[in-house]
Amino acid sequence: MALPKRAFIAGGSITSFIGKGHPDFIWKKHPDFGTKENPTWEEFLQQAVDELIAQTGLNPADVDRLYLGNFTGELFVNQGHMGAGLVGTNPAFANKPSMRVEGACASGGLAIMAGLDAIAAGADIVLVAGVEVQTTVSARDGGDFLARASHYSRQRSIDDFTFPALFGRRAKAYCEAFGVTADQIDTVSIKAYGNASLNPKAHMKAAKMDADTAAASYKFLSNEEYKPFVKVSDCSQVSDGASAMLLVSEAGLAKLGKSTADVAEIVGRGHSVASLYEDGDLTKLTTSADAVSKAYADAGVTAADINVAEVHDCFAVTECMMYEAAGFAGAGEGAKLAASGETGIQGKIPVNTGGGLIGFGHPVGATGVKQAVEIFRQMKGECGDYQIPNTPKYGLTINMGGDDKTVVSLVIANGAI
Amino acid sequence: MALPKRAFIAGGSITSFIGKGHPDFIWKKHPDFGTKENPTWEEFLQQAVDELIAQTGLNPADVDRLYLGNFTGELFVNQGHMGAGLVGTNPAFANKPSMRVEGACASGGLAIMAGLDAIAAGADIVLVAGVEVQTTVSARDGGDFLARASHYSRQRSIDDFTFPALFGRRAKAYCEAFGVTADQIDTVSIKAYGNASLNPKAHMKAAKMDADTAAASYKFLSNEEYKPFVKVSDCSQVSDGASAMLLVSEAGLAKLGKSTADVAEIVGRGHSVASLYEDGDLTKLTTSADAVSKAYADAGVTAADINVAEVHDCFAVTECMMYEAAGFAGAGEGAKLAASGETGIQGKIPVNTGGGLIGFGHPVGATGVKQAVEIFRQMKGECGDYQIPNTPKYGLTINMGGDDKTVVSLVIANGAI
Repeated sequence: MALPKRAFIAGGSITSFIGKGHPDFIWKKHPDFGTKENPTWEEFLQQAVDELIAQTGLNPADVDRLYLGNFTGELFVNQGHMGAGLVGTNPAFANKPSMRVEGACASGGLAIMAGLDAIAAGADIVLVAGVEVQTTVSARDGGDFLARASHYSRQRSIDDFTFPALFGRRAKAYCEAFGVTADQIDTVSIKAYGNASLNPKAHMKAAKMDADTAAASYKFLSNEEYKPFVKVSDCSQVSDGASAMLLVSEAGLAKLGKSTADVAEIVGRGHSVASLYEDGDLTKLTTSADAVSKAYADAGVTAADINVAEVHDCFAVTECMMYEAAGFAGAGEGAKLAASGETGIQGKIPVNTGGGLIGFGHPVGATGVKQAVEIFRQMKGECGDYQIPNTPKYGLTINMGGDDKTVVSLVIANGAI
Repeated sequence: MALPKRAFIAGGSITSFIGKGHPDFIWKKHPDFGTKENPTWEEFLQQAVDELIAQTGLNPADVDRLYLGNFTGELFVNQGHMGAGLVGTNPAFANKPSMRVEGACASGGLAIMAGLDAIAAGADIVLVAGVEVQTTVSARDGGDFLARASHYSRQRSIDDFTFPALFGRRAKAYCEAFGVTADQIDTVSIKAYGNASLNPKAHMKAAKMDADTAAASYKFLSNEEYKPFVKVSDCSQVSDGASAMLLVSEAGLAKLGKSTADVAEIVGRGHSVASLYEDGDLTKLTTSADAVSKAYADAGVTAADINVAEVHDCFAVTECMMYEAAGFAGAGEGAKLAASGETGIQGKIPVNTGGGLIGFGHPVGATGVKQAVEIFRQMKGECGDYQIPNTPKYGLTINMGGDDKTVVSLVIANGAI
């Protein structure tokens, strides 16, 4: 069904995404190790909300609803009930409706979906945020925590690193079905790190990746069958960070003193969920494709209309498969599209311009919100060194939770075009 | 704001709520201990959905959206991403929009709020469910897990049992401010266990509670200041279970072949959230009162119009304070109302007729859904031995998360009156 009421993105904020490998992240060799701490989830969320208010000129009292995407604060930071934390970011939010929504790595996208419903239900100004802090534990413990996005009782044992193994399984199936090679898939990571180097907020802004480094990257799985198909360089980052955006109705726009030309409009959305209990065709992201097709139908556009995209590159192979789910490439042709360079910043269809989950980073609950904010920023020329050359008219996001289980896709239109 | 579109409860299911103290719960002295297992979260959820489908004659393919309330599956059952589990309960749900929402013990109420927005946004049939399994760990570990509903970094250390201590703090403030006595508060637990003994699905259906037993009940807190104010008999149960309901528009009703007389209508709702970071007046549930006042305003009713209620008795003192938040009693008069017997099944305003969180049990994510289903069942005469004598016209629910932080309140009208 089409959107029952027009809904606009009136602004968005993204904190720096940090974690191991980021120069400011306090870790064993950092000069502040032992004397200072990395920011808490409360601090990241506060920063994202404060920046959003400053940027949009929002009167906090005008907010009708608040939604927060978070995957698993209960484990990484011992905190559930974060919707009440979002209310705590400003005294004017007291007694307003707020909730946390969760769908693994699609939690941020779900917060946007809930916000769109709120607009349809009569809200004019909705604050949508996402936050995750996950650098509090070892990589191995973190791998176990993140396995809560799979069907734990069925899938946990595939490897200590459940999700890398699940996508190693996909990479194996995909490479074997279509004759795709590792060096083609590596071009995704090389692009991600390259874009991140142009993005001061990116987790991997200071890291380098080229074909030799990617080819030599460590294969860390214990599962012998999938081990050859996943390297460290293929993986999205374990990041801390937050993102926030303002979703508004036409009346909300007027309240903010903004015109449609100042903002972006969500003109299509798809939200598709597959059963946690069973898996389908490993060579395709069928749930993602379903969500995108709904978003395109809502918006009355096709893949050819999209000028910029943020897709869920939890692993390098996932981005290749997302190109296919989005209709940018045919079945099995996604890796070739990556290798062609056409999804680079200067390419025909730039994808993940700020570095994506691999380069910009992946604070899980924030990611879906960040994707939409990134499209907004590209439309408004706010991307600095990674600004794409032509102002986009239409942008696409695909935010995926688990192994193609919960997917939210948005088509966003530039109000200025 | 009033509901933008009429929304009806077309049916609801509740599984048995079980845990320690329930005769069927497999625990050390149970004959099946070591050979059989208690049901999993997947099994409880499946049972609730299957029963709902059977009861309402629903064609699962007609469901437009799905929402699931769950507090902290990540910890108790190693599972997030349960929205995809809900989709897994029926093949016809594949690719439909589904999400888990969370606001501590108000998670089920939030799922209903999200469902109401979905109706307003154009959905006709929405499946709302809640589930929690929490008997997988020791009481002490469970106390730590549940402390994720408080502001963990600030409040965890109040006691090993954080929430009993937070409500011990309220009980102390409440008793001292208003001269309330423990034996007055005990009448809440005595009613809860008494009602539960009439309810075959109740966790505490086989337990007995009278004034002497309550008075002698163990005070288990380590915190010396609050220890005198909390006994085992005051506490809601650590239960496993699920509940599901069908929320439908007028068009959805027609699809189900039902008339308004067959169902109940949600005519008012309030959703208020307070900051996780600070606490207000300990003698009042101010956030709950705010949510109820919104629900009453929506519905155009007052406390005097309510014929039956389900309120969040996470502790016995909470129910007394909820009477005040609901306007059933003045400030400090809630305990007297409890002691008067007027909130019993035969009383003027029956509250928690199936036993509430103390007697029926409290599988956290299911509770908010169960409350609304209980009101529906009282309206339709489905409560068996605990059916109230006069068919209610209006029912009230108050579902609270944390220490009066996230509150959802509903006014439900009987379509047959």
